[in-house]
Amino acid sequence: MTARNAFYAQSGGVTAVINASACGVIETARKHTDRIGKVLAGRNGIIGALTEELIDTSAESDAAIAALRHTPSGAFGSCRYKLKSLEANRREYERLIEVFRAHDIGYFFYNGGGDSADTCLKVSQLSDSMGYPIQAIHVPKTVDNDLPITDTCPGFGSVAKYVAVSTREASFDVRSMAKTSTKVFVVEVMGRHAGWIAAAGGLASTDDTPIPVVILFPEIEFNQEQFLSRVGENVERHGYCTVVVSEGCHWPDGRFLAEAGTRDAFGHAQLGGAAPVVAQMVKDSLGYKYHWAVADYLQRAARHLASRTDVEQAYAMGKAAVELALEGRNSVMPTIVRASQEPYRWEVGVAELKNVANVEKFMPRDFISEDGFGITGKCRQYLVPLIQGEDYPPYAGGLPMYATLQNVAVAKKLSGDFKL
Amino acid sequence: MTARNAFYAQSGGVTAVINASACGVIETARKHTDRIGKVLAGRNGIIGALTEELIDTSAESDAAIAALRHTPSGAFGSCRYKLKSLEANRREYERLIEVFRAHDIGYFFYNGGGDSADTCLKVSQLSDSMGYPIQAIHVPKTVDNDLPITDTCPGFGSVAKYVAVSTREASFDVRSMAKTSTKVFVVEVMGRHAGWIAAAGGLASTDDTPIPVVILFPEIEFNQEQFLSRVGENVERHGYCTVVVSEGCHWPDGRFLAEAGTRDAFGHAQLGGAAPVVAQMVKDSLGYKYHWAVADYLQRAARHLASRTDVEQAYAMGKAAVELALEGRNSVMPTIVRASQEPYRWEVGVAELKNVANVEKFMPRDFISEDGFGITGKCRQYLVPLIQGEDYPPYAGGLPMYATLQNVAVAKKLSGDFKL
Repeated sequence: MTARNAFYAQSGGVTAVINASACGVIETARKHTDRIGKVLAGRNGIIGALTEELIDTSAESDAAIAALRHTPSGAFGSCRYKLKSLEANRREYERLIEVFRAHDIGYFFYNGGGDSADTCLKVSQLSDSMGYPIQAIHVPKTVDNDLPITDTCPGFGSVAKYVAVSTREASFDVRSMAKTSTKVFVVEVMGRHAGWIAAAGGLASTDDTPIPVVILFPEIEFNQEQFLSRVGENVERHGYCTVVVSEGCHWPDGRFLAEAGTRDAFGHAQLGGAAPVVAQMVKDSLGYKYHWAVADYLQRAARHLASRTDVEQAYAMGKAAVELALEGRNSVMPTIVRASQEPYRWEVGVAELKNVANVEKFMPRDFISEDGFGITGKCRQYLVPLIQGEDYPPYAGGLPMYATLQNVAVAKKLSGDFKL
Repeated sequence: MTARNAFYAQSGGVTAVINASACGVIETARKHTDRIGKVLAGRNGIIGALTEELIDTSAESDAAIAALRHTPSGAFGSCRYKLKSLEANRREYERLIEVFRAHDIGYFFYNGGGDSADTCLKVSQLSDSMGYPIQAIHVPKTVDNDLPITDTCPGFGSVAKYVAVSTREASFDVRSMAKTSTKVFVVEVMGRHAGWIAAAGGLASTDDTPIPVVILFPEIEFNQEQFLSRVGENVERHGYCTVVVSEGCHWPDGRFLAEAGTRDAFGHAQLGGAAPVVAQMVKDSLGYKYHWAVADYLQRAARHLASRTDVEQAYAMGKAAVELALEGRNSVMPTIVRASQEPYRWEVGVAELKNVANVEKFMPRDFISEDGFGITGKCRQYLVPLIQGEDYPPYAGGLPMYATLQNVAVAKKLSGDFKL
């Protein structure tokens, strides 16, 4: 068997640990040079494959690749670009095959979430549909934690840790200020449809450090009256209250609390600004002084506070993807399987891509407290293992030493540009 | 000489390291029981002295006090409450003396910023003005870094580190996304009048990790045209741009970019929301997709990312305050003196309170680049030492173990309530 090259690309919103998966893919491929030639990365995701803008990762030293493990963001650039169906845009698939053939690419590793799993699924069918032999393996990634089958998604554990820690820290702050100043602190977190990230705010409160946290989930229709009543009770009883609001929180009629009216490349509504809306509501109805924060990219880029469990799982998913390819698999995604709850143990499983693509995993109703404003013991049991352990990046001069790769371009072999 | 008790209180906005100063005060006092009896803390700052709500810190174990060093926020509660002048409100001063006398308080340690230094100054004059013997020492604290004389203020170094690291992380994120999605990321940071915190965003970019950062300082009148032109240039050249906007950024006529119309207890305009204003401006004029974040309390509470230098200085200021008291000093504040730039060395100095109270230290013009959107080498030289070193709190179950004290109340000795 002769070695063929591998294509690796990052897709969708990046995370604190997607590069740890890239590290897992590349380091594992480097151990199997008899089967895998070079790992060529797509510059800016799948777009790099379409435009033949490939990055030669073999130009990077082992040390540079190792540093990806502690570097947030997407080292090769990501994109929001979803392939249409074969019927709707055959031209794109023909182009992919043209590029793959020109660069002898036999393995396709795509690192992304639900939309990307769909792209990966379509590529995995190219052998059958268009006669080009390729093995396509999806590497799970999404801070939203909304992929099915896998117990969790790399990227989520670190955001969860960030949100839990930040919520605890800011709650201590507002508790200090509450006598004469701020009584309510509102922090807005990501999670367009699924409330996993918001749920992590509930972890800030533990038996030995109780904190009155009210969570607004996208899965629960916003009930203003009940919400204000709950905030008021907390301030009466504890002197202060912390609110964690998901960007996806919405009114019964479906309107987001913070509808901006703009849409991203996938056609999703672009959100932001639920926190000031909620804070103003508290001020107007209850009269409490507030502060609010919107974490936005800070939460998903916060490699400085990554969960060690998450980093290890992200790396393992990259490694497993290559191993699955070497086993001859196609159209699959490695998964994280919770083998034991206490003590927490996990192992690597595998899922068929057709069962993953375009399926969103929401918070089960029994993970949300009956009143809709908190998490249950069952949810806590699920979440707590995912934020375990710290994995600090190295620092120099007071700042984390994050890697920026050279990203050396592979010489183009095709003539003519491809218009996206 | 018989031992007299000490009063300690926290004032104004809390920080990631104000409790490290409390730790320095209490641990040092505990070594001098021949001179200092108990340290009685004001519950919610100076209000606790007025209402005779005192906390007996001697009820806390050495371990609990030691844990303050790694706990953000104000362990005894803070307040925004400024004493009026002796002429304007003699009743408050008479009450303070009544409480001090009842509890044999001979030392007054007040941990705060410029407004608090003014309160401390007034208390320090009680010996002369009202015949009650007391030594009042101010312990510097403010994330705004705007106290005069001292080289820096405890609390600032940790916020600076948080802003520098978060700006770097989010910039890596937007750089990854810029091809098809977000091209401009805007993060809003604190700093009502002084741009020290915003300046720290400039540290995200270094020679080996260059990042196109545009900073909007409160010291520089906002020039929309020049700002947009600078952002556009960065996106053209680098593909993306990060904007760090101070909450205090304002138009030439003095209106804040994000004027909310409300005012805090000191009469300062309450701000928030400059980031969405700036982001929308970029979208409207340049058409770039944006994301924005407002760090708010997250930045000043982020003990998980504290600067070790800052923690050490905060502790040293608390310790020095007690030592100054033991030397018989009154109406002073320990300061941080930069003894050497390279290698950075600092020592403890002392300032007269009358030279500190109500004086704000702004960014010198030569710390801001000529175009007004960046920091100079001189500024970088000043800032870099302040973010050096990490000082991670201990973790359990994935979360930092922050201390919540028992805060045992001292039995009241006075009859009747005091109305604030």
